[in-house]
Amino acid sequence: MATINSNFLKLKAGYLFPEIARRVKAYTESAPDKAARIIRCGIGDVTEPLPSAVRDAMHVAVDEQGERSTFKGYGPEQGYEFLRQAIVDNQFSNLGISADEVFISDGSKCDTGNILDIFGKGNTIAITDPVYPVYVDTNVMAGNTGDADDKGAYAGLLYMPCTAENNFVADVPTQKADLIYLCFPNNPTGAVATREQLTAWVKYAKENNAIILFDAAYEAFIQDPEIPHSIYEIEGAKDCAIEFRSFSKNGGFTGVRCAYTIIPKGLTGKAEDGSDISIHQLWSRRHSTKFNGASYPVQKGAAAVFSEEGKKQVSELISHYMGNAKLFREACLSLGLEVYGGENAPYVWVGCPAGVSSWEMFDKMLHEAQVVVTPGSGFGSAGEGYFRISAFNSRENVEEVCNRLKALIA
Amino acid sequence: MATINSNFLKLKAGYLFPEIARRVKAYTESAPDKAARIIRCGIGDVTEPLPSAVRDAMHVAVDEQGERSTFKGYGPEQGYEFLRQAIVDNQFSNLGISADEVFISDGSKCDTGNILDIFGKGNTIAITDPVYPVYVDTNVMAGNTGDADDKGAYAGLLYMPCTAENNFVADVPTQKADLIYLCFPNNPTGAVATREQLTAWVKYAKENNAIILFDAAYEAFIQDPEIPHSIYEIEGAKDCAIEFRSFSKNGGFTGVRCAYTIIPKGLTGKAEDGSDISIHQLWSRRHSTKFNGASYPVQKGAAAVFSEEGKKQVSELISHYMGNAKLFREACLSLGLEVYGGENAPYVWVGCPAGVSSWEMFDKMLHEAQVVVTPGSGFGSAGEGYFRISAFNSRENVEEVCNRLKALIA
Repeated sequence: MATINSNFLKLKAGYLFPEIARRVKAYTESAPDKAARIIRCGIGDVTEPLPSAVRDAMHVAVDEQGERSTFKGYGPEQGYEFLRQAIVDNQFSNLGISADEVFISDGSKCDTGNILDIFGKGNTIAITDPVYPVYVDTNVMAGNTGDADDKGAYAGLLYMPCTAENNFVADVPTQKADLIYLCFPNNPTGAVATREQLTAWVKYAKENNAIILFDAAYEAFIQDPEIPHSIYEIEGAKDCAIEFRSFSKNGGFTGVRCAYTIIPKGLTGKAEDGSDISIHQLWSRRHSTKFNGASYPVQKGAAAVFSEEGKKQVSELISHYMGNAKLFREACLSLGLEVYGGENAPYVWVGCPAGVSSWEMFDKMLHEAQVVVTPGSGFGSAGEGYFRISAFNSRENVEEVCNRLKALIA
Repeated sequence: MATINSNFLKLKAGYLFPEIARRVKAYTESAPDKAARIIRCGIGDVTEPLPSAVRDAMHVAVDEQGERSTFKGYGPEQGYEFLRQAIVDNQFSNLGISADEVFISDGSKCDTGNILDIFGKGNTIAITDPVYPVYVDTNVMAGNTGDADDKGAYAGLLYMPCTAENNFVADVPTQKADLIYLCFPNNPTGAVATREQLTAWVKYAKENNAIILFDAAYEAFIQDPEIPHSIYEIEGAKDCAIEFRSFSKNGGFTGVRCAYTIIPKGLTGKAEDGSDISIHQLWSRRHSTKFNGASYPVQKGAAAVFSEEGKKQVSELISHYMGNAKLFREACLSLGLEVYGGENAPYVWVGCPAGVSSWEMFDKMLHEAQVVVTPGSGFGSAGEGYFRISAFNSRENVEEVCNRLKALIA
C-alpha cells in the first residue's frame, strides 16, 4: 500500500499566487467587460523584454546545438565553468568566493525549496513574518512543522515578526535557531538590512552554529551604496551562510529560468554522530543525483548578462522598474497611506486604509479599480493590513494604476 | 546547531558517472598522448545535432522574448498548454490521458528523484538489479533505506534481480512492495517488457495497492510493434502507475533540458489516517511550490518535436542510433560474447569475457583500446560481469569502436 507524505495535508489552502489567479479568474468571469482593464501588479513577474545581449547569446547557443562539433549534451550538473566564473568575477570579486562554490540551477524557487533535502529533521527553522511563502511551505512538506493554527501559523516554526516598529527587519531572536531564512532586499516588504544588522545576524549564527539561508534575488535593485548586496560582505559569513541569487529579476529571466546558489566550501553542518560535514559536498551530491544542469542556451544567455552590453541593458531595466517604484511610492504617500520599501527594491509595501484588511483591499482594488495587488496577509499574519505593489510593469500601466489608486482612495 | 540529512552519508562512493569521469581523467593525465584517441560510449548522452525544427522553434521563442507584446515571464508551473496538449495528441492518443495529467519539467532525472517528495516514509521500494542508479540514490537520500552492504546493496530495498535467466525483465515479486520502479526499454540492459509482462505488473500493483513508477525515457527506440510504449496501454494502469518521459534521447535534449511526467487524476495513495489522497494534487502542489516551470524557449522547442518536420528528423536520429546499436551487437556477437539489448533500445548489454569483472573490463577497454563503456556492476551487483555500450555516437566512431573491440578481444 503506497502511502503519501502526509505533511502535504498540513498545507493551508493554495499557494498564495494560485489563489490570486483564482480570484482574478472568478472576477473576469463575472465581469467580462472589465477583463481588458485589469492591470496586474500582483505576482512579482518582470514585463520588459529580455535584453538583446541575452537573446543574441541564446541564438548563438541554439545554433551551436545544430553542429555536431559544437553540440552540447549533458553539461556539468553544477553548471558550466564559463558562467560560474563570470558570476564570481562580476558579483563576488574581492569576497573570496571561488567558481566551484557557485551552483547553477533553473531557479531560486527550486533552490530554496530543494536545499532542505540536505538538512536533518529537528532543526529549528526561523522565518520572518511576513515571508515569501515558499520558505514556509517547503518546510511544511519536509515535515519540519506541526499543524497550522487559525491564522495560518505552523507549530514548530520560529516566526520573527517584521513590523513598522523594527522597520521590517527582523531582530535577532533571543532563542536558538538552526536554519534562518533572510531575504534582502525583502520580498514582500522591500526592506533592506544595513551592514550592522547583517553583522548581528552573522554573529548570532556563528554563536548558535546556525546556517543563514540568504535570499539575495533582488540585490540588483539596491540603490543605496551603504547597503550590502551579499551576505559575504560580512566577515565570517562564509562560515555560516548560503546565498541564493537569480537572473529572474535583473536579467528578466522569469520565463527563461536561471539562478544560482553559493555554498562556501568551509561551511559545515552536524551529522547525527556529531561530526562536521561539508554542506558543499552534500549539495554537490544532491545536484549530481537529482538535477542534470540548467539548459545550455539558457546558461549562455545568463553569462551575457555580464557582458558590457548586457550590464548596460540590465542597468536600464533596473532603472525603469525603480522609476515605477518611485511613482507608486509618491502616489501612495500623496494619499496619506503608510508606505515602505520601493527605494532599494521593486516592491512597495503599503498600509491599507484604516479598518480594511489585506484581502478586503485586494478585492476592492480588483473589483473597483481592476488592479491586482498582493494582499500582505498572504505572506503571513504580520502582513495583515498591508498590500504589496510590484513595480514590474510598463511605465504607462504604472501611471494608470497611480491614477486609479487616487480615484479609489481619495 | 544545524544538522544535516545523515542519510546522505549512507551513499556509496560517487554516483557512477562521476566515478567514470574520474577514471577517464586520471587515465588521460597519465597518458596524455592517448587522450585524443578516446571514444566515449559510457554515459548515455546523445551526440548528433539538435533537429532543425527544434532549433527553429527556439529561435522564434527567443525573438518573442525581445518584444513586450510577446514576452513571456513566469509560465504555468505544470507547463504550457500547447506542449501538454501536443504530448497527449502525439504520444497518448486513445490512451485516455488528458493534457492536465501531463507535468512538464526540466528533466526525468529531476522528476524520478523529486517524486519521492510526495510519498510517505516506510514504503517498501522495489527496484531492479541492475538499475539506473538515480532510483536507488534518491531513496537513500530520502531515508527509505538502511546502510549498504559490501556489494553496495542497501538494507530495506526490495531488489529484483534481472539476469539472463529472466531475459533481464524482473519477475513479479512474491512479497508486497509499495513503490515499484520499472524502466522499459531498460537502462542499462536494453531489455523490453511484453504486454503480458506489463499486464502482470499492473495486476500485482493493483492487488497490493502499489504504485508503479514507469520510466519510458527510451520508448522512441522500440522497433518491435508488439512492445508497448506506455504503461497506459495496459488496462488498469491509470489506477496504479506514473509514467516518466523525456525529450533527451529522442529529440536530443540532454543539453537543452525538457521532460514530462504523467499522473492520472484517478491515482491515489494512502494518508496516515487511511484516506485516499490524489497523487495528481500532491504533485501539482509540489510543482507549484518547488518549481517554476521549464524554460519557455525550451518548451517551444519541445513542441516542435511533434511538428511534421520534427517527427521526421527525430525518426532519422532514432534510425541513426539504432543502426549503431546493430553494429555493436554484430561486432560483439562475432567475438562470441553474450549480447543483450540493442534491438529496441540504444544500449547494448554485453557479457565480459570469462573471469573478467565489469570494472576490469572498463579499465582494460579504457587503457588498451581507449574506449569508455559503463561497467555493469555500477548499476547493481547483478550487473557484475557485464558492460553497457551506448549507441549514442557518430557512425564513424561506432565503426572504429567495433574494430578496436575486435583487436582487443580476438
